[in-house]
Amino acid sequence: MQYETKKRSILKAISWRTWATMTTAVLVFVFTGKFALAITIGLLEVFAKMALYFFHERLWQKIGYGKKEIPSFVLWFTGLPASGKKELADRVYQQLKADKLKVERLDSHDVRPLFPETGFSPEEVNRHVKRAGHLCAMLEKNGVIVVASFVSPYVKSRIFARGVATNFVEVYMRSTVEACERRDAKGHYAKARAGEYQNFPGVDVDYDVPENPEITIDVDLVSVDDAVKQITTYLRSNILNS
Amino acid sequence: MQYETKKRSILKAISWRTWATMTTAVLVFVFTGKFALAITIGLLEVFAKMALYFFHERLWQKIGYGKKEIPSFVLWFTGLPASGKKELADRVYQQLKADKLKVERLDSHDVRPLFPETGFSPEEVNRHVKRAGHLCAMLEKNGVIVVASFVSPYVKSRIFARGVATNFVEVYMRSTVEACERRDAKGHYAKARAGEYQNFPGVDVDYDVPENPEITIDVDLVSVDDAVKQITTYLRSNILNS
Repeated sequence: MQYETKKRSILKAISWRTWATMTTAVLVFVFTGKFALAITIGLLEVFAKMALYFFHERLWQKIGYGKKEIPSFVLWFTGLPASGKKELADRVYQQLKADKLKVERLDSHDVRPLFPETGFSPEEVNRHVKRAGHLCAMLEKNGVIVVASFVSPYVKSRIFARGVATNFVEVYMRSTVEACERRDAKGHYAKARAGEYQNFPGVDVDYDVPENPEITIDVDLVSVDDAVKQITTYLRSNILNS
Repeated sequence: MQYETKKRSILKAISWRTWATMTTAVLVFVFTGKFALAITIGLLEVFAKMALYFFHERLWQKIGYGKKEIPSFVLWFTGLPASGKKELADRVYQQLKADKLKVERLDSHDVRPLFPETGFSPEEVNRHVKRAGHLCAMLEKNGVIVVASFVSPYVKSRIFARGVATNFVEVYMRSTVEACERRDAKGHYAKARAGEYQNFPGVDVDYDVPENPEITIDVDLVSVDDAVKQITTYLRSNILNS
C-alpha cells in the first residue's frame, strides 16, 4: 500500500512557492510600481504560505476523493507447447511494466518447479491450472495485473480460471501441431513421440481449442511485434481506458 | 494501481487558492492600507495561480519521490483444529482493514471448497498448504498484507510457506488436544475418534508444534481481545513502523 511522506509534501511546498511567489511579486510590482514593496510582500508570503501549503497537503492525504484504481485483469495465454506463449507473454509483460502498471508475471516454467510433485496427467494438470487461476484471481482482486502463460490444454480448468477472475482476457495462440513441432527447439515433441512423455498435448492428448477467446494470435502469420500491438490495443480499448 | 484524477487536482487547486489568496490580500492591505488594491491583486492571483497549481499537481503525479509502500507481510495462523485460529485471524484482519491497510484474508474453509479434489492425507495437506503459501507470497510481493489461517499441521509445508515469503509471521495457537476437543462445537474431534475422519491432527496424526514461531498465543489463558492486542503490538513494532 502506498502513502506519501512528509518530505514529499515539503518539497512540493517549496517547488510550488517558487512559482507562486514570483507571480505575487510581479502582480504587486505591476500595480504599485514599487519594487521594494513587491519583494517584501513576496518574502513574507514565502514563509506564511509554505507552512500553509504543507498542512494543505497533509490534509488532502486523508481525502480519498479522486484517487482511483487502474482496473486490473488476468491476461491468460493458452496454446500448444512451443506455440510461443512464453516469449509473447514476456514481451507484453515488459510493455505493461514500462507503462508503470502494477503487473505480475506467472509462467508454468516458474511455478511447476516449486511444486515438483505435480504430474502431467489430465487430472493433475487441471488441478495445477485451477490453482494457478485462483492465484491470478486473488492478485487481480488486489489491484495487480497478471500476465499468465500455461499450456492449459483442458477447457475444464480454463473455465475455472475464467470463473474466479473478474476481467479474464484469454489469448489463444493459434497454430498447428506441425508448426509447433517445427518450432520446438527443446525437442519436447520428439520426446513425446518417442514415448518419453505421456499426456503431451497435440501428441497423445488433445488440446481443447478455446471457443470464445478474447484475443486470437495467428502465431504462424504475424510477427511477435504485431502480436504485442494486437494485445495492447485490445487492452487499451477494452479495459485500461474504460 | 492507484492514480489521481484531474478533478481531484482541480478541487485541490480551489481549496488551496481559498486560503492562499486571503493571505496575499491581507499582506497587501497591511503594507499599503489600500483595500481596493488588495482585492484587485487577490482576484488576479486567483485565476493565474489556480491554473499554475493545477499544472504543478499534474507534474508531481509523475514524480515518484516520497511515495512509499507500507511493508506487507504474511501473518500465518497455525494450530490444532478448534484452537481458535479462524476467529482470531478474522479479528486481526478486521483491525488491519480498519487501519486502512491493503489486506487479504485466506482461510482453509474458503480455499478448500474451490478445490474439492484436495484430500486430507499428509501428502495432500502438504500440497495444499504449499500452494496456499505460494499464493500468500505472491500477494505479499505485490504489496498486499495476507492474514492466513490453516491448520497446517506439518512442519515441511510450513517451512515452504515461510521460505517463499519475505516477511513471514507465524502465529502458533498453543493449546492442548483436550482443550480443543472441549471447544469443538462442530464435533470434528468426535467424528475423528469414531473413525469417520482419517489423518485428523491431534487424533490419528501428530500436529508438529512450531519451533520458533514469531508469536505464540496461549489460547486457553488469554482472551481474544488480548490476543488481538498481542499480535497488533508485534506487527507495529516489528514490521509496520520499521
